[in-house]
Amino acid sequence: MYSVSVIGATGYAGAELIRLLSSHPRVRIAHLASSSAAGQALSAVYPSFLSSRLPELETPDYDLLGRDSDVVFTALPHKVSAQAVPPLLAAGARVVDLSADFRYSDAAIYAQWYGAHPAPSLLSRAVYGLPELHREAICGAQLVGNPGCYTTCSILGLAPAVRAGLIDTDRIVIDAKSGVSGAGASATRDLHFCEVDENIKAYKVAAHRHTSEIEQELSLVAGKPIALSFTPHLIPVKRGILATIYCELTEPQSHADVMAVYRNFYEGEPFVTLCEDGSLPEIKHVNGSNECRIGWVVDRRLSRLILVSALDNLVKGAAGQAIHNMNLMLGLEETEGLTHRAWYL
Amino acid sequence: MYSVSVIGATGYAGAELIRLLSSHPRVRIAHLASSSAAGQALSAVYPSFLSSRLPELETPDYDLLGRDSDVVFTALPHKVSAQAVPPLLAAGARVVDLSADFRYSDAAIYAQWYGAHPAPSLLSRAVYGLPELHREAICGAQLVGNPGCYTTCSILGLAPAVRAGLIDTDRIVIDAKSGVSGAGASATRDLHFCEVDENIKAYKVAAHRHTSEIEQELSLVAGKPIALSFTPHLIPVKRGILATIYCELTEPQSHADVMAVYRNFYEGEPFVTLCEDGSLPEIKHVNGSNECRIGWVVDRRLSRLILVSALDNLVKGAAGQAIHNMNLMLGLEETEGLTHRAWYL
Amino acid sequence: MYSVSVIGATGYAGAELIRLLSSHPRVRIAHLASSSAAGQALSAVYPSFLSSRLPELETPDYDLLGRDSDVVFTALPHKVSAQAVPPLLAAGARVVDLSADFRYSDAAIYAQWYGAHPAPSLLSRAVYGLPELHREAICGAQLVGNPGCYTTCSILGLAPAVRAGLIDTDRIVIDAKSGVSGAGASATRDLHFCEVDENIKAYKVAAHRHTSEIEQELSLVAGKPIALSFTPHLIPVKRGILATIYCELTEPQSHADVMAVYRNFYEGEPFVTLCEDGSLPEIKHVNGSNECRIGWVVDRRLSRLILVSALDNLVKGAAGQAIHNMNLMLGLEETEGLTHRAWYL
Amino acid sequence: MYSVSVIGATGYAGAELIRLLSSHPRVRIAHLASSSAAGQALSAVYPSFLSSRLPELETPDYDLLGRDSDVVFTALPHKVSAQAVPPLLAAGARVVDLSADFRYSDAAIYAQWYGAHPAPSLLSRAVYGLPELHREAICGAQLVGNPGCYTTCSILGLAPAVRAGLIDTDRIVIDAKSGVSGAGASATRDLHFCEVDENIKAYKVAAHRHTSEIEQELSLVAGKPIALSFTPHLIPVKRGILATIYCELTEPQSHADVMAVYRNFYEGEPFVTLCEDGSLPEIKHVNGSNECRIGWVVDRRLSRLILVSALDNLVKGAAGQAIHNMNLMLGLEETEGLTHRAWYL
Repeated sequence: MYSVSVIGATGYAGAELIRLLSSHPRVRIAHLASSSAAGQALSAVYPSFLSSRLPELETPDYDLLGRDSDVVFTALPHKVSAQAVPPLLAAGARVVDLSADFRYSDAAIYAQWYGAHPAPSLLSRAVYGLPELHREAICGAQLVGNPGCYTTCSILGLAPAVRAGLIDTDRIVIDAKSGVSGAGASATRDLHFCEVDENIKAYKVAAHRHTSEIEQELSLVAGKPIALSFTPHLIPVKRGILATIYCELTEPQSHADVMAVYRNFYEGEPFVTLCEDGSLPEIKHVNGSNECRIGWVVDRRLSRLILVSALDNLVKGAAGQAIHNMNLMLGLEETEGLTHRAWYL
Repeated sequence: MYSVSVIGATGYAGAELIRLLSSHPRVRIAHLASSSAAGQALSAVYPSFLSSRLPELETPDYDLLGRDSDVVFTALPHKVSAQAVPPLLAAGARVVDLSADFRYSDAAIYAQWYGAHPAPSLLSRAVYGLPELHREAICGAQLVGNPGCYTTCSILGLAPAVRAGLIDTDRIVIDAKSGVSGAGASATRDLHFCEVDENIKAYKVAAHRHTSEIEQELSLVAGKPIALSFTPHLIPVKRGILATIYCELTEPQSHADVMAVYRNFYEGEPFVTLCEDGSLPEIKHVNGSNECRIGWVVDRRLSRLILVSALDNLVKGAAGQAIHNMNLMLGLEETEGLTHRAWYL
Repeated sequence: MYSVSVIGATGYAGAELIRLLSSHPRVRIAHLASSSAAGQALSAVYPSFLSSRLPELETPDYDLLGRDSDVVFTALPHKVSAQAVPPLLAAGARVVDLSADFRYSDAAIYAQWYGAHPAPSLLSRAVYGLPELHREAICGAQLVGNPGCYTTCSILGLAPAVRAGLIDTDRIVIDAKSGVSGAGASATRDLHFCEVDENIKAYKVAAHRHTSEIEQELSLVAGKPIALSFTPHLIPVKRGILATIYCELTEPQSHADVMAVYRNFYEGEPFVTLCEDGSLPEIKHVNGSNECRIGWVVDRRLSRLILVSALDNLVKGAAGQAIHNMNLMLGLEETEGLTHRAWYL
Repeated sequence: MYSVSVIGATGYAGAELIRLLSSHPRVRIAHLASSSAAGQALSAVYPSFLSSRLPELETPDYDLLGRDSDVVFTALPHKVSAQAVPPLLAAGARVVDLSADFRYSDAAIYAQWYGAHPAPSLLSRAVYGLPELHREAICGAQLVGNPGCYTTCSILGLAPAVRAGLIDTDRIVIDAKSGVSGAGASATRDLHFCEVDENIKAYKVAAHRHTSEIEQELSLVAGKPIALSFTPHLIPVKRGILATIYCELTEPQSHADVMAVYRNFYEGEPFVTLCEDGSLPEIKHVNGSNECRIGWVVDRRLSRLILVSALDNLVKGAAGQAIHNMNLMLGLEETEGLTHRAWYL
C-alpha cells in the first residue's frame, strides 16, 4: 500500500479525489489538509463521508506531508500550489498538482494568462499529465501538472485529427459546455442556484485561460504553432463537459476514414472510447467514469468535420486523471481504482 | 398615477416587485434604493432590466423617499426594516414592509424568534397584510407587514378548515417545500448550485420562524391558541411553495363537504382558487401568478384531511401580495397589475 | 376586438399562444381546437388555465374557424398545417402558421428537408414572418409562415454582419443550445426527465432542418448563396435558446465598429436589444419576453467575431413572434400584448 | 464466481442492477433479457455501457435462464413477475424479484391494491427482502420479494421507534419525496422533462400502493396492526428519496434517548447510518450508495418526533438491496459489491 495525501481537501476536486482514493485498492490516505477547515472531519463539509474512516482535516504542513506520503495531490488555487510543491518535493514525495502552475513549459506563456510564475525553475521538472500524449514522461516524473478539464476534453478530441493533418489548423473552433462543479466550490452570486438554474451563458469569450493550454499541447502534436477559438459555457448540471469542435477538412474524408485515424491514435488507451457506431457522446454517457468519449460527423456538404468530445470534469478532467497519473508514477496498473462505469442515471 | 419606491431593490423580492410594478397601470416608480449597489443601473444586477426606463439605484434616503412616494416597499432584512419604516411614515408615505418586523401583534413573540424588536411601539399601527383575512384593516392602514411566503401558503390552506372546526387543531402537521429564491440572493455555500441541484433537504425542523406567524394567524381564526408542526424543505427549483398539510377530521366529511366550507370562505376572493375537480395543485400551476391554489383529499380510511396548497413564493408569497396590499391601501381595483396567468412552462 | 383562434391548442407553442393572447388587449379568443383533446377544457391539459374563461377545446372545423376568426394561428405538425391552411384562407381568415410549411419560397428546398410539399401553390402567397426583415410584406399578408425558433435566433444574430459584409460568409459556424420545450410536448423516451436532466447533447449535427431556413434568409440578406454549419444542442432547461456564432472578420473591427453596424440595422426595432455595455446575453435575460438580445466579442488575436444571440423559444421563437405578426397584419400597435419583461427568476 | 441474470434489463432498476453487478467481484453476468430490446446491445439503450463486455439482450427464456443462473433478478412489471418466477424456480435458480408480486404474505392485501394475485401459492415461499428485518429468512430463501423504494425508506426510518413503543402508532404521517427514476423509464407526458422540471407535486394521496407494504411490515414490528398516512411527491431530481416522518411521542424523549433506541436496533447493520451529530440526511448524502441514513429532531414543544430518512431509490431502494439479498442468499460477504460511497456531486 502506498501512502497518499490530499492538500485542498474541501474543494470539489479534492473531495472527488478522496472519494476515488477511498476505494483504490493500492493506496491508503495518510493526510487530508485544508487551511479553511482544519480540525474538522471531512464529513462536516461533505456529509456523504459520514462513517468513513478518514483522517481529520489538518493545517497543511508541507514537510510532514511530504515525508509521510508517496504521492501528494495538491488541489489548490494557482500560485498557492507553486509555493506548496517545492517543500513537498524536497521532502521526497511525488506530487500531482491540479492547479495550472505546472502545466506550462514556458513561464512566459503562464505569465501572460496568470501573472508572473512563483517558481519558474520548477517548470522544467514538471511533466504535463495527459497520459495519452505523455505517458512515458509521466512514468518517470516526480512532479506532474494535471491538465485542466476543458483542456483534456479539447485536446483528446482534436489530437488525432491534428497529428494526421486531416484539418486546417488555422480554423479550429471549440465550443465547450461545462457543469458547475468546474467553477469550484466558492460561494459567489454567479454560482447561486437561482442564477445558474434554467440558464446557459457563454463566459470569458476569447479570453479563457485554458485556451493557452490547449494551444500549447496541440502545437506540440502538430509540430507547428496553433491558435484557435475556445468558448466555454456554463450549463445547469453538476458535472460533465461536452466540447463541440468545428474543423475544416483539408481533403474529403468519410466517417470511416476519420475512424481509422482515431482508432490508430488511441489504440490500447484504457480511458478513451470512440463512438464506433456513428453515435455522439453525451455527458450522461461518461459522468462518474474516467472515460473521455469521442464521436464525430463528417459534413460533406461543407467539407467540415464536427467532433464531439465528452468527459466528467471531476474525474477524467481532474481527480480521475490525477489518479491515473499517480498509477503511472508508481508503476501500478494504469486502470487501478478507475474502472467505475458511468452512472447513466 | 401614484408614485412608488422600493428599498432593497437588488434582493430577489425587490427585483420581482420592480418587474411587477413596471407593468402596473396605475403607478410609476419614483426611486429604487439599494445600499449595496447605489449608483448602478438595476440592469447591472439583473440584466433582464436592460433597456427599461427605471431610475438608477440610489443610497436609501428615507426622508426623501418618504416625501416622494405614495407607497414605499421595504424589502430589507428584519431589524433593518424596523429602522427604515419610522422615517418613511413620518415623511407621509404608506409603507408595505416585506420583512418580519411588522407581522406580529405581540413584541414578545417577535423577540422569541428574532430577538428584541427595534420599534415595538409601531406594532400596534401595523396591519398583517393577508387580504383574505384582514382586507378591511389593510384598506385603512398606513403600515402593512407583508406575510411570509410559507406563512401565506399555510394559512390560506388551513384557515377555512380551522374556522369551520373541521379538524383537530392540536394535530396539524405542515410539510412545506420551497424553491430556492425564498432563501434570498445571498451567496452562501448552502445555495451554491452544486449543493442544491439534485438534492432535497429538510431544514430548521421544529425551529423555523414562520411557525410563529402561522400560529398567530390561525389562533386568531380559531379563537383559541394553536400550536402546530411546520417543516420546510428546500427543493431544486427557483420558485414556488407547495405545502402538504395533514389534519385529523373531527367528524367524517366528504370532499364536497369540505368544498362547501372552502368555497364559502373564499367566495369572491380574486387570488385563491380551489381545485373544484378533485385535482391537486402543483407549483407549475401557479408560478408567475398571484394565485394561491388549494386542493385536498379526504382519507376516509384514517379520517384525515390532507390539504395541498401552492403559490409562487415571489408573487403571492411576497411581491404580488405586497402590490395587492398597495392596491387596497390606495383604493385601487384589487387585481390591478396582478392578472398575470401562471407560466406553465 | 378582433377574434382569434388557435388550432393545435395543446402543444407547447399553442399553450403559450393562448397564455399571451389571454392578456392581449385587442383580441378575444373565439375557438381553441385540438384533435387530441376535443371536448375537454384546456385546463385539463394545462391546469394553469384553471378558472380562466376560455372556450372548450373543439375538433378543428376549418370552415367554421375561418369564418369566425379574423386571425387563425395554426400550431400543427408540418404537412398537417398545409392541409389546414387552404380552407381557413378560403373562409376569409388571415393565418399565422407556426409549422415549417409556409417558410420556404422554393418548394424544392422544402422537399429536400421535409418531403414533397402538400400545397406548393400557396408558397407564393406566404410571407416569411420575421418582422425585422419582412415587416412591410407581413403587413399586407394574408398568410404568414412563422419562423423557427433556432432560425429566428440565428438570423437576427447574423443579419447585420452579413449585410454589412463584416464577415466571411463561407465560414460561419452556429452552435445553438435550446431548452426542451422546443422539442414539443410529445412523450418520447428522449424527453423523459431522467434522460434530459444533468445532460447535454448535440443532435442532428449537419442535418437539422432549420439550417435550410437560416440559409434561405441570410442568402437573401447577403444577396448571394450562403451555406453554414448549424449544430443544435439540448440542455436541461425548459425555455430559451442561446446561439454562439463564430465568424471570421473580413477586415479588423472594434467592438464599437460592430456596434455601429448593429445599431443601424436594428434602429427602432422594438424586440431586438443590443448589449451596449459589452456584456453577453444569457437566456435568463430574455425568458418570458419577446426580446432577442445580441452581444459579441471581437477576438483581435484571431480576427474573429463571436456573436451571442438569445431568445425565448416559446415567445420570440414562436408564440410571441406569431402575435407580433398578427399585430402587423391587423394594423395594431406592434408591441401590443407583447411588453412582458423577462422573468429573471 | 456465481452466474447471475437480469430479466427486464432495460428499465431503470435493471440498468442499475447491471451497473452494480458489473463491478461485483463474485459474480459474472450470464444473461440479460428484455422483451422490448432483444437482439440489441444494452449500450443501444444505455450508451454508458458502450465498450463493456456484456451479453447481448435476449428474449427471456425462463427455463434457460433458470438453468444457467445461480440467481436471477426479475425487474418486471407486477403480474408479469409472478408468471416469470415459477419456471425460474423450477429450473433451479434463486430469484430476487423487484416487483410487488412477492412482497406480501397475504394474497388478499395484494389483491386489494394490485388485483388478483397470479400465483398466490408462491407467497408462502417468498421472503420479504429487507435484511434489517428478515436477514435470517433471506439467507435460506430461494425467492425474495425485494421491497419498494418508498417502503424501504419509510420502514427503516420508523422500525426502531415502533418496536420500542416511543410513538403513538395511530398518528404516523409519512411525507415522502422521490426522484423521477422511481417512476420508471416509460415515456409518458407526466414524466416529460418540461412537466417535471421546476415543479413538485403530491400524487396518489392516501392511495399509494406502498402504503400497504409499509403497514404490513410495521405491523409485524409492532405486533399489532398499524395504519398510517403516506404521501409521495415527485421532485425534479433523478435519484433519491427523502421521507419526513411525523410522530407523536408517547412519553418525553431527548435526542439521545432516541439515539440509544436506534443505535441498538441497527447495531452492526452495514447499510444503515444514523446522524450521530444531530444533523439530518439529504439525498445528496446517500445517492450512489447502498446506505439508508436516518436523523431526527425531537420537538419538545409539541412532544413530537420528526424523523428524516434518506436513500437512493435505485440502490438501497432497488438494485443495491437486491444485490444485498443475493449476497445473503449465496452466503457471500454482505457488503460485497456494495461499498460505493455516495457521490456528493
